[in-house]
Amino acid sequence: MSEDNRIIDGGNHAALWHGRFKEGPDAEAVAFETSIYEDMRLASDDIRGSRAHVNMLGKQGIIPAAEASKIAEELGKIADEIKEGKLQIDTSAEDIHSFVEGVLTDRLGDVGRKVHTGRSRNDQIALDERLYLRHAVPELQQKLLDLMEVLAGIAASHTESLMSGYTHMQRAQPVTLAHHLLAWAQMLRRDYGRLGDAAERMNACPLGSGALAGSGLPLDRAMTAQELGFSAPTENSLDSVADRDYCIETAAALSILMMHLSRFCEEVVLWSTEEFKFIELSEKWSTGSSIMPQKKNPDFAELIRGKTGRVYGDLMALLTVMKGLPLTYNRDLQEDRRSLFDAYDTALSCVSIFTSMIATAG
Amino acid sequence: MSEDNRIIDGGNHAALWHGRFKEGPDAEAVAFETSIYEDMRLASDDIRGSRAHVNMLGKQGIIPAAEASKIAEELGKIADEIKEGKLQIDTSAEDIHSFVEGVLTDRLGDVGRKVHTGRSRNDQIALDERLYLRHAVPELQQKLLDLMEVLAGIAASHTESLMSGYTHMQRAQPVTLAHHLLAWAQMLRRDYGRLGDAAERMNACPLGSGALAGSGLPLDRAMTAQELGFSAPTENSLDSVADRDYCIETAAALSILMMHLSRFCEEVVLWSTEEFKFIELSEKWSTGSSIMPQKKNPDFAELIRGKTGRVYGDLMALLTVMKGLPLTYNRDLQEDRRSLFDAYDTALSCVSIFTSMIATAG
Amino acid sequence: MSEDNRIIDGGNHAALWHGRFKEGPDAEAVAFETSIYEDMRLASDDIRGSRAHVNMLGKQGIIPAAEASKIAEELGKIADEIKEGKLQIDTSAEDIHSFVEGVLTDRLGDVGRKVHTGRSRNDQIALDERLYLRHAVPELQQKLLDLMEVLAGIAASHTESLMSGYTHMQRAQPVTLAHHLLAWAQMLRRDYGRLGDAAERMNACPLGSGALAGSGLPLDRAMTAQELGFSAPTENSLDSVADRDYCIETAAALSILMMHLSRFCEEVVLWSTEEFKFIELSEKWSTGSSIMPQKKNPDFAELIRGKTGRVYGDLMALLTVMKGLPLTYNRDLQEDRRSLFDAYDTALSCVSIFTSMIATAG
Amino acid sequence: MSEDNRIIDGGNHAALWHGRFKEGPDAEAVAFETSIYEDMRLASDDIRGSRAHVNMLGKQGIIPAAEASKIAEELGKIADEIKEGKLQIDTSAEDIHSFVEGVLTDRLGDVGRKVHTGRSRNDQIALDERLYLRHAVPELQQKLLDLMEVLAGIAASHTESLMSGYTHMQRAQPVTLAHHLLAWAQMLRRDYGRLGDAAERMNACPLGSGALAGSGLPLDRAMTAQELGFSAPTENSLDSVADRDYCIETAAALSILMMHLSRFCEEVVLWSTEEFKFIELSEKWSTGSSIMPQKKNPDFAELIRGKTGRVYGDLMALLTVMKGLPLTYNRDLQEDRRSLFDAYDTALSCVSIFTSMIATAG
Repeated sequence: MSEDNRIIDGGNHAALWHGRFKEGPDAEAVAFETSIYEDMRLASDDIRGSRAHVNMLGKQGIIPAAEASKIAEELGKIADEIKEGKLQIDTSAEDIHSFVEGVLTDRLGDVGRKVHTGRSRNDQIALDERLYLRHAVPELQQKLLDLMEVLAGIAASHTESLMSGYTHMQRAQPVTLAHHLLAWAQMLRRDYGRLGDAAERMNACPLGSGALAGSGLPLDRAMTAQELGFSAPTENSLDSVADRDYCIETAAALSILMMHLSRFCEEVVLWSTEEFKFIELSEKWSTGSSIMPQKKNPDFAELIRGKTGRVYGDLMALLTVMKGLPLTYNRDLQEDRRSLFDAYDTALSCVSIFTSMIATAG
Repeated sequence: MSEDNRIIDGGNHAALWHGRFKEGPDAEAVAFETSIYEDMRLASDDIRGSRAHVNMLGKQGIIPAAEASKIAEELGKIADEIKEGKLQIDTSAEDIHSFVEGVLTDRLGDVGRKVHTGRSRNDQIALDERLYLRHAVPELQQKLLDLMEVLAGIAASHTESLMSGYTHMQRAQPVTLAHHLLAWAQMLRRDYGRLGDAAERMNACPLGSGALAGSGLPLDRAMTAQELGFSAPTENSLDSVADRDYCIETAAALSILMMHLSRFCEEVVLWSTEEFKFIELSEKWSTGSSIMPQKKNPDFAELIRGKTGRVYGDLMALLTVMKGLPLTYNRDLQEDRRSLFDAYDTALSCVSIFTSMIATAG
Repeated sequence: MSEDNRIIDGGNHAALWHGRFKEGPDAEAVAFETSIYEDMRLASDDIRGSRAHVNMLGKQGIIPAAEASKIAEELGKIADEIKEGKLQIDTSAEDIHSFVEGVLTDRLGDVGRKVHTGRSRNDQIALDERLYLRHAVPELQQKLLDLMEVLAGIAASHTESLMSGYTHMQRAQPVTLAHHLLAWAQMLRRDYGRLGDAAERMNACPLGSGALAGSGLPLDRAMTAQELGFSAPTENSLDSVADRDYCIETAAALSILMMHLSRFCEEVVLWSTEEFKFIELSEKWSTGSSIMPQKKNPDFAELIRGKTGRVYGDLMALLTVMKGLPLTYNRDLQEDRRSLFDAYDTALSCVSIFTSMIATAG
Repeated sequence: MSEDNRIIDGGNHAALWHGRFKEGPDAEAVAFETSIYEDMRLASDDIRGSRAHVNMLGKQGIIPAAEASKIAEELGKIADEIKEGKLQIDTSAEDIHSFVEGVLTDRLGDVGRKVHTGRSRNDQIALDERLYLRHAVPELQQKLLDLMEVLAGIAASHTESLMSGYTHMQRAQPVTLAHHLLAWAQMLRRDYGRLGDAAERMNACPLGSGALAGSGLPLDRAMTAQELGFSAPTENSLDSVADRDYCIETAAALSILMMHLSRFCEEVVLWSTEEFKFIELSEKWSTGSSIMPQKKNPDFAELIRGKTGRVYGDLMALLTVMKGLPLTYNRDLQEDRRSLFDAYDTALSCVSIFTSMIATAG
């Protein structure tokens, strides 16, 4: 994402040395700086944000109301077409903002360009990420509820099933299977809460922060915040475009969730051994051997346990990216999406797979 | 911390090979497994927990009320003596629980030992950590408030002081110093909230969970929870002794806080350069050169920026410790304190130093 | 990657509970466990390994020499077709091994299946990864040499150009630009060495280790090792399929390299400021503003600095995956490739971009 | 560690705001910036470096030969006194360099101060760390050899003892205990090599690099390098004081070693279960229960597995500290020692404890 804000002065560069190789590898450069692949999933949120913005521009008379309507309507069509697969996102676009604005301008001419009045890509991406997480987090929370329900269901049938409780992996005291499974559920409940807290803390709309210093135009930030479902606009424009703590907080909650799953999976792997034999995974959720059909490797549990590493790594990546960056927007921030989305996708699929695996175990 | 719970069966070990070196390095072993140095700071919380527990034991008639009173009274004295420096914590003790119980038994004889009735070190340490964090987190939050107040104070005098706002470390648009400093304050405000959420989520009392499976004694868990200021007892005993997500969540909040401080310090370092000259640190908070007295190295800002690494590392340590551990208590958990306390101490001192440094800058 | 080895016994599973949902989401399961996207780049190395293996099988008379020749020849064709884009890798295949063996069997019938005689996917993937790294690492080393050469070239013209040397980001003592740039080169030289040491340490051929315990067939491990350019076969079969320290060591070397690049890029960003003005990036390697053409944001330097985070994260992911796994192969290991390849690709492109950027700076 | 080099110019600071709180918490500041606790272990290496330096100063006639002898002799005494416990390191000293120079000056008057001629604390600490690691790494390598020898010894008696080899924690194929233990030994052998490569790569003497730009005095860097056992002086002074890749490389090797130990310990814990019963730990290396004497918790194996987290964390700390720091010395670098030494101490004690534990298992 390149920037599009104004600067104050240029200065008289006194270069220390002169370059000699004027031609660089263009394709390589383009591939290096694009964020379009990560951005794709933001398309509908990006458009949703643009519609709210343009509605406000029209209402405030910053652009003619008729043009605002036209733009909003066309944005709606673009969103539908992308959703229905009729419009492919062009991966040669620099980012999702460019792509959408490009399509809009192709269709509406110069009017299309007005969507960007009083806005910068710096506040736009901060908005898109928040809009995305504000619905992606509840989707994951629902999956957690599903898993807790499955656990509660199994537990309900096993309030009298005794098993050994362990400390130090040594048999310690008898407990019921119900009690054991509900220990997992308690951990998931806190994961649910952590994710919710993260989503709530980012419940403020950065739109109107501009490149960093807001806008001289009479933007109605409360209006866009409300239309987009935020409780309020953000309070400081520099903060709005400079920070990514909401990504890190989300990734930390995901890491703790994966920590819990890694523990449950360790138990599934352990319980599936010949030596423990506490559980038998269904055929779908284990991998056999063509030669020895009775063998059941708990591959899915192992994979979830292994994928814990990548979520931890994503958290560490985000923390590292932000370390020591001066305010406000720096291009380093673009690296946030890949790690955040990878952590999210991994956790979502792991919860889903774990739920199916445990629901069908015997 | 060794365990003191009962086990179910022993089994007939069929050893694969026979050891030949029967004598190991005892001192080395003791040094390796002690947690007394990390535990020291838990002394008053440990005793507070024991007093609540013994009061409940007396009230429930599990031990004679008179003995309960005697134990509670003596525990109060021990706490006072430690606080006043009259009683030194013996670093040859295995952990803080052993030390306190040892002193108690030295003074009261066998009666002293009754403090541990219906309790295990497994629920005891989980309690101590939560009690500790429940007052340590607010202490740090207060420091954050102090810093925000200092920032607001400076900002109040500089609502008209213009400076360059930067993107990509390039001059972008003019902003006021007030606006810039209040961007920092916004970040700190969210840090404050994250810490508070972590403290709230651990607001449940694990006492009564025993080694893992609770106790057959008529413990009144609501009573101890209330006396210790928790909103309720924890709901699952296995979860209570097996998880440390509260440590990780706290460390994650501390890491994000340090991320923010590393950014402010980067700006302090940058602003202190000859080239930027936006700020002049006071003599106390910079380091000079005996030869060139005008030189002012921003050492404290650099140190805070550097210490960000150790807090990130502490978070990663905690996440790694917990990865893949089956339920319930495993001795690995003992490693939680060193990382948690180091992260906490580091963040606390960094906030404090940063506040003084920025308050006296010109 | 599912396993294909024999097991010893099955046992009589006494299940603790009975599953109720027999049908799980198949497509989701397949997507969850595939490694084909990461494996794609291993195609030519996988085939190269198979050819060496089948040549040996023929030579040892384990399979008929004529069949071995036929398989080897067909493998060669498959490799060529993939390279030329005539044969697309089927992403519905479970892994690259399945894909290649599938194509082979389609073309040669049951004879094709014989390629897998005396081999397991466990030793096959360990081989593929080593073969890959044994040529990928030197490719990166060459890029490092190119960068060092560029630095030396600029330095040669600036042995008299004075600039300020800095400590604490404060001007300290004058140095030449040549001296400063050659400090970077020294760091890169050690990165070169670290990568070389990693490649050398993995210079042993795991083929013949089987699933974990080798093979009862008269495999000539020295022959395959030699044909594949290894100095020797690995010495222990369990170790060969169970460890991934070579991935972690490589990722650690890449992380240190990225640490260095993040520092050089910090200087490029700093030197590009109005305040420092030590350097002027070429237009190709900076991003301007349509409104203010003189503005030059050092986006590429910022991106490289930011991408440091993902390489650190990849290292942490790999360390986490391997923590606490018992021997030998566990499915968790499949998670190694995504992190390793991401770290490698990121470092490779960052070195390449940095070289072009610095070569054309003035 | 404050700096003691000359700067070039001071400039006329135009402060943006004026500080109001002139008095800060001095004790807190001192505690915050001291490195004396970490430095203590460097005392003998620091003195050894100073002796080589002063011998060279005398030989080169930079200071009178008689004074050089006197200083060298007194340094020898100081080293002996510290070693014998006669001289306590004053923890109110800022760092080990200040302490030693302070003692020297107390005893020899102004002559003592001459030890620092042509040297800065920046090259001094880089020297001390390298000297330290150049003997600490071989100490750890010796411990690894001891462990490999113990493993080989047990293996020698068990070349016919059959056990189940596992994949996916499922019984797979029979292997000998010898074969299994020697898989561990192979991993340790590579750890040995990685540590050796790190030690070899730092085999160059930074002394003479000064604060950053060397010295105008006729220092004989080859002489000091040789006396201190380095193969050569470092080649670039800026690099010598600015980088800490040798710390990170060492910490990465230690992390991989701990990864291996965490896996062996996972197996020890697993093998110690009632369900597996492959091993019986000696009483010294397990922890029992007073009530059930037959219970043997594998606490030491669990602790080693847990301590893996802190070494990973130390590595992440070091990588974070260095990320994005411009050249040359920044005070952030001081944070290197705590993480490096913690990683080293942890790994050393874990190897030692593991060796004793496994040697006495049956």
